[in-house]
Amino acid sequence: MRDVAIVAVGMTPFGELWQSSLRDLFVQAAREALDTVGCPRPDSIFVGNMSGGQFVGQEHLGPLMADHLGYAGVPATRVESACASGGAALRAAYFEVGAGGSDLALVVGVEKMNDGADVTDVLATAADQETEVYHGITFPGLYAMIARAHMETYGTTEGDLAVVSVKNHRHGAMNPKAQFRREVTLEDVMTSSMVADPLRLLHCSPVSDGAAAVLVCPLERAREFTEKPVKLRGSGMATAPMALADRADPAFLDAVSLAACRAYEASGIGPSDLHVAEVHDCFAIAELCVLEALCIAPRGEAAELTRAGETTHGGRIPINTSGGLKSKGHPVGATGVAQVIEIVEQLRGEAGNRQVMGATIGLTQNMGGSGASSVIHVFERV
Amino acid sequence: MRDVAIVAVGMTPFGELWQSSLRDLFVQAAREALDTVGCPRPDSIFVGNMSGGQFVGQEHLGPLMADHLGYAGVPATRVESACASGGAALRAAYFEVGAGGSDLALVVGVEKMNDGADVTDVLATAADQETEVYHGITFPGLYAMIARAHMETYGTTEGDLAVVSVKNHRHGAMNPKAQFRREVTLEDVMTSSMVADPLRLLHCSPVSDGAAAVLVCPLERAREFTEKPVKLRGSGMATAPMALADRADPAFLDAVSLAACRAYEASGIGPSDLHVAEVHDCFAIAELCVLEALCIAPRGEAAELTRAGETTHGGRIPINTSGGLKSKGHPVGATGVAQVIEIVEQLRGEAGNRQVMGATIGLTQNMGGSGASSVIHVFERV
Repeated sequence: MRDVAIVAVGMTPFGELWQSSLRDLFVQAAREALDTVGCPRPDSIFVGNMSGGQFVGQEHLGPLMADHLGYAGVPATRVESACASGGAALRAAYFEVGAGGSDLALVVGVEKMNDGADVTDVLATAADQETEVYHGITFPGLYAMIARAHMETYGTTEGDLAVVSVKNHRHGAMNPKAQFRREVTLEDVMTSSMVADPLRLLHCSPVSDGAAAVLVCPLERAREFTEKPVKLRGSGMATAPMALADRADPAFLDAVSLAACRAYEASGIGPSDLHVAEVHDCFAIAELCVLEALCIAPRGEAAELTRAGETTHGGRIPINTSGGLKSKGHPVGATGVAQVIEIVEQLRGEAGNRQVMGATIGLTQNMGGSGASSVIHVFERV
Repeated sequence: MRDVAIVAVGMTPFGELWQSSLRDLFVQAAREALDTVGCPRPDSIFVGNMSGGQFVGQEHLGPLMADHLGYAGVPATRVESACASGGAALRAAYFEVGAGGSDLALVVGVEKMNDGADVTDVLATAADQETEVYHGITFPGLYAMIARAHMETYGTTEGDLAVVSVKNHRHGAMNPKAQFRREVTLEDVMTSSMVADPLRLLHCSPVSDGAAAVLVCPLERAREFTEKPVKLRGSGMATAPMALADRADPAFLDAVSLAACRAYEASGIGPSDLHVAEVHDCFAIAELCVLEALCIAPRGEAAELTRAGETTHGGRIPINTSGGLKSKGHPVGATGVAQVIEIVEQLRGEAGNRQVMGATIGLTQNMGGSGASSVIHVFERV
């Protein structure tokens, strides 16, 4: 297949955006990406969205969004893998552009969560209805069980989880598009309300509205659009048993590990080559589990790596310089694309005071449900 | 990109399948396809589904279905474009396999509509919530307006619509997997209950459960699996304004016309080369509009073509030999894949008493909403 590059990005602020509808958010992010490169007409549109149907009563987002963007006629499809929908949409575009089916693909992740729906109930439809949700579990509960398993196996503490939140808020405070642009202290985290023991409010990502867009084209045509293309070096995707109870080790994310192996193999890049990464910290424990599944930390040692400051801005391998889902916000379908935007901006040297000096290789890790699906992409400045 | 072929198919009966859940239907169709070629493990899974979230409270169908099929780990993604979800899922697999991202892709369309949800309300989320649904319109109403526009412009009559239903029921009576395996008369249709003037009950496709699966691989490897591969010669997709009121001519389906142009160009096949086609007759009027958009009939002449028997089994270009959505049933996410199965069986000479003699080239046309999206594929026996 042809090599593929990201040539433009656009993103709404993330937050409680009561004045913007689902389609408004989509158009705002897409228009920003298109406008930066002279408003080309895309050949295809991919919409990453978890649940427009349940959140705002709207399925069939492909044609709706193409139409509202002024591009009725353009092929447009929605791709869904719960909170990994954005990453899955980019992956679909990657193969379509790589195969020659499209020369310019617009990928937009979008979610409108604040609009009256019971968000916890809607999100729970990303877990197994028959063996999990029917019995009353929700996502904070599922990740709390993952946290308990990690604590039991590796001695991880509540304080370790809090360090992740403090770090990501420190990063998010520097991100003008983050939902929570303020730092929090260890004490703030450790005294915040208990949501699902041991996860407290400040261990949990928020309910957010937002959209994020990237423009994808063959690498050989990238310089028609920008002087700073970012090559998509490889894509890896994997699944794992849907229900937590069906997994061999609830504290280890098999889908992430398998997707990482595939992405590393496809890109020829290993974990030690990475300069920066955005990972799916929907809950603080998720960031620790993901770092271990990515082989950025050995099993059971992600907390130590985090406490040592190696994953903070200025450390050896900065993780979630955007603020992560925790501080930047988590409009679920948009998250996977927003992660890509942070890495693209880092590799272009355009991340402002969050810039990781000398970064040329980065990774995004997007995850659905309690880790039943994961999509990983590796990027390089060219 | 690499040439791509269909090497196996599997399908549940369509109907009110109260004893089968969404995941049961998926596994039954997928297993049938895989078993016919020695149970290979797919490299990737694509799920075409319109609204598991609203129909049965289940999103994130990729990993759930991979898991229940016994293939946790395999990359699995849901693709949605309302009632064109099945066609859109095949298109995504086509490009992934074509690009070399996968060597064996399983594509399954599935929908469980009979499970307690208000089906009309759920389906309406495929129309524009803000400018159409909010004001009370549903899909029978939208297609009734399309029918009125067609009648006004071309003089199409209620009897013309009935001829389509009679033909498709005649075909469906020969399909052991059809929901309604019985013929109906013109009088049956013309005296059935009015649903949305001028559309009567027997002009409308039913509410259905079901799943349909196809296995996709590079053409060069197809004979490892079957002696009768069917080449996917080209794919075309397009969108149109979401709201009927925003279209230049409500009686002409622009998305179908544009998708057809793209599919004809990609495949090098024109409408006069086709031996058989499955088209999206969600309502009888849709079949007439689609035949005109596909250039199988000149504008305004599809009714005449149908009345002349040219689209019936034994005619010049048999349309919907499976029974179509009207008689075979319309589990919305499954429909696009079920259309492909009928064409594959026709081109393999395995369509039983529905066989179109000498058929070597066929087309499928799948459509979302009131025609805001359409996916078209062209197939050839090789």
